[in-house]
Amino acid sequence: MTQSKVMVAQGGGPTAVINQSLVGAILESRKFRGVERVYGAFHGVRGIVNEDFLDLTQETTHNLEMVGETPSSALGSTRDKPDLAYCQEIFRVLKAHGVGYFFYVGGNDSSDTVRIVAEEAIKADYDLACIHIPKTIDNDLVVNDHTPGFPSAARFVAQAFMGVNLDNWALPGVYVGVVMGRHSGFLTAASALGKKFTDDGPNLIYLPERDFDVDRFCREVKEVYDRQGRCVVAVSEGIHDGSGNPIITSLAKQVEHDEHGNVQLSGTGALADLLVQVIKDKTGIKRVRGDTLGYLQRSFVGCVSDVDQREAREVGEKAVQYAMWGAKTGSVTIHRTGFYSVDYQLSDLNAVAGKTRVMPDDFIADTNNDITDAFRLYLRPLLGRGMPDAYRLRSSNFVERILHKDRPWTKG
Amino acid sequence: MTQSKVMVAQGGGPTAVINQSLVGAILESRKFRGVERVYGAFHGVRGIVNEDFLDLTQETTHNLEMVGETPSSALGSTRDKPDLAYCQEIFRVLKAHGVGYFFYVGGNDSSDTVRIVAEEAIKADYDLACIHIPKTIDNDLVVNDHTPGFPSAARFVAQAFMGVNLDNWALPGVYVGVVMGRHSGFLTAASALGKKFTDDGPNLIYLPERDFDVDRFCREVKEVYDRQGRCVVAVSEGIHDGSGNPIITSLAKQVEHDEHGNVQLSGTGALADLLVQVIKDKTGIKRVRGDTLGYLQRSFVGCVSDVDQREAREVGEKAVQYAMWGAKTGSVTIHRTGFYSVDYQLSDLNAVAGKTRVMPDDFIADTNNDITDAFRLYLRPLLGRGMPDAYRLRSSNFVERILHKDRPWTKG
Repeated sequence: MTQSKVMVAQGGGPTAVINQSLVGAILESRKFRGVERVYGAFHGVRGIVNEDFLDLTQETTHNLEMVGETPSSALGSTRDKPDLAYCQEIFRVLKAHGVGYFFYVGGNDSSDTVRIVAEEAIKADYDLACIHIPKTIDNDLVVNDHTPGFPSAARFVAQAFMGVNLDNWALPGVYVGVVMGRHSGFLTAASALGKKFTDDGPNLIYLPERDFDVDRFCREVKEVYDRQGRCVVAVSEGIHDGSGNPIITSLAKQVEHDEHGNVQLSGTGALADLLVQVIKDKTGIKRVRGDTLGYLQRSFVGCVSDVDQREAREVGEKAVQYAMWGAKTGSVTIHRTGFYSVDYQLSDLNAVAGKTRVMPDDFIADTNNDITDAFRLYLRPLLGRGMPDAYRLRSSNFVERILHKDRPWTKG
Repeated sequence: MTQSKVMVAQGGGPTAVINQSLVGAILESRKFRGVERVYGAFHGVRGIVNEDFLDLTQETTHNLEMVGETPSSALGSTRDKPDLAYCQEIFRVLKAHGVGYFFYVGGNDSSDTVRIVAEEAIKADYDLACIHIPKTIDNDLVVNDHTPGFPSAARFVAQAFMGVNLDNWALPGVYVGVVMGRHSGFLTAASALGKKFTDDGPNLIYLPERDFDVDRFCREVKEVYDRQGRCVVAVSEGIHDGSGNPIITSLAKQVEHDEHGNVQLSGTGALADLLVQVIKDKTGIKRVRGDTLGYLQRSFVGCVSDVDQREAREVGEKAVQYAMWGAKTGSVTIHRTGFYSVDYQLSDLNAVAGKTRVMPDDFIADTNNDITDAFRLYLRPLLGRGMPDAYRLRSSNFVERILHKDRPWTKG
């Protein structure tokens, strides 16, 4: 049997543009004469070991284009993190089906899987190209300038905070929004991109790259609130104290919240609720509200960056090109050129696999509760065309009071 | 002093299009020669009694157009519900400033304020037109076919569930999304408008118009999960048991969640978290996730229905027309004509004020956990142009297994 088949799969958390990468890989593969079939595995590596394959050679180009514009993994995904034995089983199945090209769209765990499968193929002297196609809303892949999926999630977060800031202006108080990102603060930092005026929220941004101190947090919230009568806060779900303990754990005790092991501490609204409670307790501010942005961040339909879509398509296409022109293994990486354009490279899997990128220091303000203009300059072009903008009534033309001449202005 | 001034204000929860109504009222007022000034009060009725006014006659038309497209109340809002004495103070201020036309954009509480102020003017034999301009994401104003603000919030909820359904398909489990709406289920019901295939979520929808039973709920979730390996649920924040007690209260006890009066039970993620916990406890399903859509529903920037924008503008414009052509009091109401168009009327404030509209029975399925096609037909035209659509890979072309010929298909 010749190795003339292509296998493509998607792993990890879905993104708004992960199907662009899938479609890029499928359509590009179908252009090459040597490719007999393009297979897609359902639910990532688990679908491979289960032999749950769809023949994508028979899918229409038109439907593929529509699927490309649809968020979340169209082949399904998996949280499985294969060990050596699992990767050997993947290789066994790929070999049995005469697969010569394996493309896996995913984050750093997925890139590690690709790396091990590639090693198995070399050991077995089997001709298999194994290419990792990057995606993650966390933007935590090293080597890359940024990662497909992040720009669209960032745009959602920026637009969400643009809206809650306006809402908080209309009905003042404290608002806490919890954003995804356990180790890397890129997505939380994106909340700042909807700011226009100096008093716009988020007024405070707390990232997992810095230690979080509950007392300082409450003090800083109160400072902003006392100054401008309201305060919008963006908090990463991954905030932790100086010893690395998640804040959600210590807070759960601090507000005397008895959980009996019943209350799930992640993937829920618990952190936002606890932060709201601690602000109320420690500052005496009454109107304090919390939201957890949750799954909407990575799968909302209708809030996508066109730059992200294009790049996600291109990394899928480039992966196939690299493989077809002879590359045996690697990870497609994105590199910024000019302001703004990108170029792609095939990087060594060992440089990417299993590593986590965090926000560089120059993206984080010295106060540890805000981002810098360097980060704004980095993120803005990724958000793409048609970013909405918020407008205010100009508040210069106050009307002279008649009945209460001595009362100070309460707004302006 | 002649009554040649216009006063406009915004009350209650902000919406994505409430500024269209404001701008409609301002621009239309400025067309009439008899109008000397157009004033806007900051933070609704509170701004009136405080005499915090902006002279909107001096605002540029261009900036007003941009503000019109910006979500949330540009003049600020208030939760104050004026009693008689408060309304008398409003009237005293309006009279002192020679206001002849009072326009208040708000929900049913606001319409009641307008009604009382109008009565005060009549008692004092003061020539004051008092017109209520409707808005509310809850869609709970009687007389109206629907209310400005609801269509855009409905579109956000529909798009949000379209996305989480795709996410849940990729990584199967149970997903519970809690939607705003304490007494009326319209917004929660809107979650169904992103469904395309029969197995698409939300598979179950729980509305405050029906009593909620925790055991039946868990049974129904398990049924769907057992049938299709996943389940997406939309729940109104206002669900209650047969005695009218909010479910959040009874659940908080049921999952042995000690709150010491510390845990806020509304405006937080608590209900979603409690429902997730009770599903885990009672069904044994492992991957159960909950989100509370929160403030994003009413203020998200960049997810607006063009139909909603247009109608919100028109009710503002019509309010001024009614007043200028002689109406003394009333509420602008929206009436559906054809499929799809609307007409406006000036209705008696007594017919609107202080009443709450809920979902009619023919919009709710007999199972009490879904909506009907009658509701789909009602809501679809309100969502406007450019609704996104979700596409799937066609799953008919399975690849024959080689290593595991006897294993059943796990997906398809």
